[in-house]
Amino acid sequence: VTQPLSEDELVAAIRVICEAKPGGGAAPRPIVLGIGDDAAVWKPSSSHLSVITTDALVDGVHFRSAQMSELHIGHRAMAANLSDVAAMGARPVLATVALGVPPHAAQAQLLDLYRGMNALAHAHGVRIVGGDIVGAPVLTLALTLVGEVRRSHLRRRDGARPGDVLAVTGPLGASHAGLLLLDGDVALDPQLAQRAAAAFATPQPRVREGRWLAASANVHAMMDCSDGLSTDLGRLTRASGCGALVDRVPVDPAAEAVAQALGEDGRAYALHGGEDFELLVAVAPRAFAHLSGRFRQRFGSALLPLGRVEKQGGLRLLEASQERELVPAGWDHLRTGAQRGS
Amino acid sequence: VTQPLSEDELVAAIRVICEAKPGGGAAPRPIVLGIGDDAAVWKPSSSHLSVITTDALVDGVHFRSAQMSELHIGHRAMAANLSDVAAMGARPVLATVALGVPPHAAQAQLLDLYRGMNALAHAHGVRIVGGDIVGAPVLTLALTLVGEVRRSHLRRRDGARPGDVLAVTGPLGASHAGLLLLDGDVALDPQLAQRAAAAFATPQPRVREGRWLAASANVHAMMDCSDGLSTDLGRLTRASGCGALVDRVPVDPAAEAVAQALGEDGRAYALHGGEDFELLVAVAPRAFAHLSGRFRQRFGSALLPLGRVEKQGGLRLLEASQERELVPAGWDHLRTGAQRGS
Repeated sequence: VTQPLSEDELVAAIRVICEAKPGGGAAPRPIVLGIGDDAAVWKPSSSHLSVITTDALVDGVHFRSAQMSELHIGHRAMAANLSDVAAMGARPVLATVALGVPPHAAQAQLLDLYRGMNALAHAHGVRIVGGDIVGAPVLTLALTLVGEVRRSHLRRRDGARPGDVLAVTGPLGASHAGLLLLDGDVALDPQLAQRAAAAFATPQPRVREGRWLAASANVHAMMDCSDGLSTDLGRLTRASGCGALVDRVPVDPAAEAVAQALGEDGRAYALHGGEDFELLVAVAPRAFAHLSGRFRQRFGSALLPLGRVEKQGGLRLLEASQERELVPAGWDHLRTGAQRGS
Repeated sequence: VTQPLSEDELVAAIRVICEAKPGGGAAPRPIVLGIGDDAAVWKPSSSHLSVITTDALVDGVHFRSAQMSELHIGHRAMAANLSDVAAMGARPVLATVALGVPPHAAQAQLLDLYRGMNALAHAHGVRIVGGDIVGAPVLTLALTLVGEVRRSHLRRRDGARPGDVLAVTGPLGASHAGLLLLDGDVALDPQLAQRAAAAFATPQPRVREGRWLAASANVHAMMDCSDGLSTDLGRLTRASGCGALVDRVPVDPAAEAVAQALGEDGRAYALHGGEDFELLVAVAPRAFAHLSGRFRQRFGSALLPLGRVEKQGGLRLLEASQERELVPAGWDHLRTGAQRGS
C-alpha cells in the first residue's frame, strides 16, 4: 500500500496531466500562469467579450460513480460546461475545477477524473488552469469555464421572435436512454445500445456548431437544452416574451429503441430527458432552409426543425392534428435534490 | 407552509439580491450579461491581465452550518476567494457560485447565503453574475472569482529572493481561536472573544492592501496564508527555490488569550491555524522600513515582519536563540477529508 499523496503532491500530479499536450498540436493559448499559485492568469482578447459559466455535478444526483468510470464522469462534467459556452456562440478558453473528494477515494481515480476532463478540454483547445480540492461526503465536481466571443456573435436566449423556426443541432433523448440502460436489462440492437451508452457517458458538446451558428445574423437566439427540451424551450420563449408550437419532436433512434423495449414513449425521453447537450436555436424563417443546408454541408448532420416561435406565451405540442399544452417536465435541480431526501 | 420555489423562481430571487445596489453607489462594472443565460458576459480590460480562482467550502469540513448563520457562511466563502485574487495584486471584478443544496434546506436560508456573499462582494466592487444550483448531501459552496491586474503589478508566489523580509498584513491565529470558541466554554474578556468570533465568522480579505502592495516593485512575492502560515510559507519558499527563517510570530491578541485560557500555545494557532486571510509578502530588505511606514499611513495598521528568506531550503523557527525546523502543519484539504471519514 502506497502512502496517499498530500494535497500539494496531488496538485503536482494534476498539473502534469493538465499541462501535457497530447499530440503536441495544441494552439498556444493566452495562459500566463496555470495551476500552482493563488489564481491563474491569462491575457483576454481585446477584441472579444469574455463569457463565464459554472456547472456542478454531484455523485448520486447527476451520475452514479458506481456505474461510471472516472474518465466518463470527468468527460461529462467538462461537456456540460463546454455546452454552455457553445450556447453563447463563444470559443472556450480555460477552465477551473473545484473537486470535492469523498473519504477513502483512491487517488488513481481522482487523476482519472482529471484525465477525462482534460481530454475533452484539450479537444476543444481549453486548458485547465486551476481549482480547489476539498474533502466532501460524496464526489462533487464544480467546473467553471471561461470563453471569448465577438460582441456581434454573442447569442442570448432572449432574442427569439414570433415566426422564427425552432431547431436543434441533433436528435434528443439518447442520453436518457443510456441512463436507463445502466439501470436495467434491456434487450436491444447492440449498435443502438452502444449509441445510447455513448450519448450518456461521453456526450459531445456542440462547440464548433455553436460558434458557426452564432456567426449568422439569422440565428436570433441560442441556448443549450441540457435540462430537457420542454424545460429549456420554456426558458427561451419566456426570456424572449413569446411562446412556441412544437410540431415535430426529433427523437434519437437509440431513444426510440430503448423506449419501445421498455414500453415507453421515445418522445417523452426527447422532450423531458435532458443531458443531450444539443443546442436549441431560433432562426429567421426565410433563412432557415439555406442555413440548414449549409449546416449539413459543414457538419455532415442536419439542423432539425421542431416547431416555431409564436406570439402567444406558453408551449404547445401538435399531436395528431391536435394542439395540447406542453408542460415543462425536464430537470429541475432543486426538485430532484428534494426528491432524493424524501 | 408555502410551496418551495422551483429552480427558476429561486434563481429569480437570487438575481434580485445580486443585482441590487445597496447605497446605489457602486461603480459601473463591465458586466454585459448577468444571471439568467447559459453564461455571463463581460468586457475585460484591454490593458490588464485577467485572473481566476476557485475555492470550495463544504459543511462539516470548512464550517458547521449548525454553528454559523448563512450570512456568515456566505461571507466566508466570498472572503476566501477575494483573498486569493488580492494575493495576485488584482482587483476583483465578478464571481460565479456553484451551490450544493442539501435535502430540506429552507429557501430563506439559501437566500441568506447569497446575501452574505453579495454584501462582501459588493463592498469590493464585485458582482455575482451566475452559477449553478444542484442537489447535494450537505451544503456545498464553490465560488469562482475573476479579477484584473496590470502585468507589472502581478505578484506570484515564486518571486521571493534570499535576504527578502517576510511579512504579513496582520496578526495571525484569531480565526482558529474563534473556531475554538464555538466549540467550548472559554472564559475570556468579552472584547477579545468578540474579536476572535469576528475573525472566524466575518474575516476581511486584504483586497485593498494586496493591490497597494503589488504596486511596489519591492514586493517580490505575495500569497495569502489561509491554509496556515507554516504550510503557505513552505509553498512560497519552495516555489521561489529557497527557504526561510522565522524569528517572530505575529500572534493576534485574541488568539493569545484563547490559547492561554485553554493552556495552549498562541504561536501554534498563528503558525498552523489557518483561515486568517492575511497576505504574506517577501519584500526587498532595503525597502522594507519605508514600505512598512507607508503601509501604516495608508491602512492604519502595521505590516508585520516575521523573518527573512534564506538561500537554504526548508523552514526554520528561531526560539530562545535556538533554530529548529518549522514543520508545515497547516490545512491539508485532503488529509482533513480523509480524517473525517476515518
